[in-house]
Amino acid sequence: MLNPVKVGILGLGTVGGGTVHVLQRNAQEIARRAGRGIVVTHACAKELNQTHPYRTDDIVLTEQLSDVINHQAVDIIVELLGGTTIALDMTLQAIANGKHVVTANKALIAKHGNEIFAAAQEKGVMVAFEAAVGGGIPIIKAIREGLAANEIGYVAGIINGTSNFILSEMREKGSEFADVLVEAQRLGYAEKDPTFDIEGVDAAHKLTIIASIAFGIPLQFNQVYMEGITHISPEDVQYAEELGYRIKHLGITKRTDKGIELRVHPTFVPNKRLIANVEGVMNAVLVESDALGQSLYYGAGAGALPTGSAIVADLVDITRTLTTDPGNRVPHLAFQANALSDIPIVPIEEIESSYYLRMSAIDKLGVLAHVTQILSNNGISIEAIIQKEPINGAEHVSIVMLTHQVVEKQINKAIQAIENLDGIAGLVTRIRLEMK
Amino acid sequence: MLNPVKVGILGLGTVGGGTVHVLQRNAQEIARRAGRGIVVTHACAKELNQTHPYRTDDIVLTEQLSDVINHQAVDIIVELLGGTTIALDMTLQAIANGKHVVTANKALIAKHGNEIFAAAQEKGVMVAFEAAVGGGIPIIKAIREGLAANEIGYVAGIINGTSNFILSEMREKGSEFADVLVEAQRLGYAEKDPTFDIEGVDAAHKLTIIASIAFGIPLQFNQVYMEGITHISPEDVQYAEELGYRIKHLGITKRTDKGIELRVHPTFVPNKRLIANVEGVMNAVLVESDALGQSLYYGAGAGALPTGSAIVADLVDITRTLTTDPGNRVPHLAFQANALSDIPIVPIEEIESSYYLRMSAIDKLGVLAHVTQILSNNGISIEAIIQKEPINGAEHVSIVMLTHQVVEKQINKAIQAIENLDGIAGLVTRIRLEMK
Repeated sequence: MLNPVKVGILGLGTVGGGTVHVLQRNAQEIARRAGRGIVVTHACAKELNQTHPYRTDDIVLTEQLSDVINHQAVDIIVELLGGTTIALDMTLQAIANGKHVVTANKALIAKHGNEIFAAAQEKGVMVAFEAAVGGGIPIIKAIREGLAANEIGYVAGIINGTSNFILSEMREKGSEFADVLVEAQRLGYAEKDPTFDIEGVDAAHKLTIIASIAFGIPLQFNQVYMEGITHISPEDVQYAEELGYRIKHLGITKRTDKGIELRVHPTFVPNKRLIANVEGVMNAVLVESDALGQSLYYGAGAGALPTGSAIVADLVDITRTLTTDPGNRVPHLAFQANALSDIPIVPIEEIESSYYLRMSAIDKLGVLAHVTQILSNNGISIEAIIQKEPINGAEHVSIVMLTHQVVEKQINKAIQAIENLDGIAGLVTRIRLEMK
Repeated sequence: MLNPVKVGILGLGTVGGGTVHVLQRNAQEIARRAGRGIVVTHACAKELNQTHPYRTDDIVLTEQLSDVINHQAVDIIVELLGGTTIALDMTLQAIANGKHVVTANKALIAKHGNEIFAAAQEKGVMVAFEAAVGGGIPIIKAIREGLAANEIGYVAGIINGTSNFILSEMREKGSEFADVLVEAQRLGYAEKDPTFDIEGVDAAHKLTIIASIAFGIPLQFNQVYMEGITHISPEDVQYAEELGYRIKHLGITKRTDKGIELRVHPTFVPNKRLIANVEGVMNAVLVESDALGQSLYYGAGAGALPTGSAIVADLVDITRTLTTDPGNRVPHLAFQANALSDIPIVPIEEIESSYYLRMSAIDKLGVLAHVTQILSNNGISIEAIIQKEPINGAEHVSIVMLTHQVVEKQINKAIQAIENLDGIAGLVTRIRLEMK
């Protein structure tokens, strides 16, 4: 295998730490996918959180950004500085140095992406920004590559977890905006200065990027209409519910005869829609396109590991492009052909599940005692039982139960014994539960 | 711009037709994304549907498969023959001829993928199969590339639209399985011989592929446990509802201490989960991975255009790899830098939307007439009105309404006039609706 690709990180805060953590924890899986290792060799950090869950012994730590972006050994720079001043300088300098850049900085891309991409194209280096929108959801990849066949007409997204958390809590608890904001700050879901999240600025950065990759237009952050959630009252939340809606803070971009709409604001969404049921800090992006129709992408929009997931996906993309023969840039089965595992496949009798059981009893009182005895003998405990009066004057009565988790062969043994009972007519219906 | 990439299609049925249709309809968008055109030059078809919505005048039509796979001008073969005999021969022969292959054939990949990929790797050509799982949803790309940083622990998917349609209808209408099957056949959602769909074979093909790319294991179709939906009764559907669940036909693969679970069966899923709310012929795949956590991918799992969308995405992927400099394989903003559009951005006053309005009225009877008059004067019609008694003994009463679609400047004018009414206290709250 080739030498590992060497990464320099600017900023070892939440997301930087998450990136290092993911790269270390999944080093083997990542190398099996990318065809070579990916290691962080240099990092610039003012001070390190003492309790970080990753190792720093193999990383050269420095307080000088230039130590990282000018170091000859570094192949890829991960920019996690935030803001659009130093971050812009460092990004352009890294590109000028011939280094590939991965960034999670939506403000930087939304405001200066046109300039950055031109520089990268001229220099022949890659600039990747999957982490800038929707955290770990591969939404940039889905739109740029997965939907490449489509004329996209409409994209709407819950792309700010803080706002979605606040609106979810207001609905669930009937609370005031201000009270939930304090709670969100306590939980670390909102910044001390929450302006960017609750006024829609963060969502507008992301929407700017989404609109560009959906419609093939230049980045135009200053054209986004922005409205936050600060004026939403518990009354509005309650009226929405009564009318069959949920209030969601959406970023919406739409192709119309007049041009492209670009707007971020609280929105009434019918409560049966999937996107209306995206709760808490989760993100989701709904895309409407002419060939595929509606598609939706859901997942964690923020946090150390989810954002690290997107950054490392970009690192793998770059590594695959640098390394493999073009015809096999992405391995057919995701992992390199010589790196497949021979983990055994589990026989169905060995899986663990909870079960729904339905049976027809003739003499319900006597039978139920026998049935529960059989289940208990096989180590199966019962979560819920429903008994119904006979339907349509039938002489049998249905017994329905949900069990707790058990190995499937135990359920099968129990079912066989139950079916042999005199008081049971016909076969037992068994359906597995899945609680995720 | 370079000459177009030339595509030969084996099979011009539903999916083949959809592929040609998408390539023709979105030719310009696709070329802007891929950096060059993609055109179908050859197609093998027994007979052509007379009412197809695409042009064939530029396509050499033949009944001989060999005419297509041996033609020197063809760069990429799209295999849409179905089955695993002739399709396998043709795929291997195309690879031997040095042609890239795109296929939607899940049975072929699930059963013979290991052999096909080895041949492709040896010959240095690409084999792409996004359309084989989840129709147009870019789920292969999401797992293989988007989640490349993650150790994946669990994948569960609604990956057979026919079964999901039948279960959705049984729940909605309380119908028997057999009756809904007939309805599904009438609507074209189920084949004349529905075995592959309703017995779980099709889902097992897809699950085989998902498990391989999630866990990096060889394709092992013969190890999948399969159970269809034919034994699900309306009673079970109803008991599920009572217990707070929905019955979904899931393909589940899971990493456990014992090995990999690979199973397709009807499943009880708690009714609050997003995946429990995926209805009709739609597909969705839920992935659980260590860095990102839960993510979900939703969209059309079958049909001419959705499947065509995935096939063309693969064609774009191959074209980008063949064409661009490696550092800019995928353009930053999805479209080539010299192919961005200058479509105008629409000012917010010009968008069309429905609106939620909430206002505080002092004298509710008199005021309501004035308010509705103002709305009517501005061309705004009302969809619903709620009037509430004063809360907490307040002297004001809330009037809440939903409007029909109207241009935003009209609503703004109306709101201004309403706020000037003597009987209205304070400002009007206005929230936009989004009905998708």
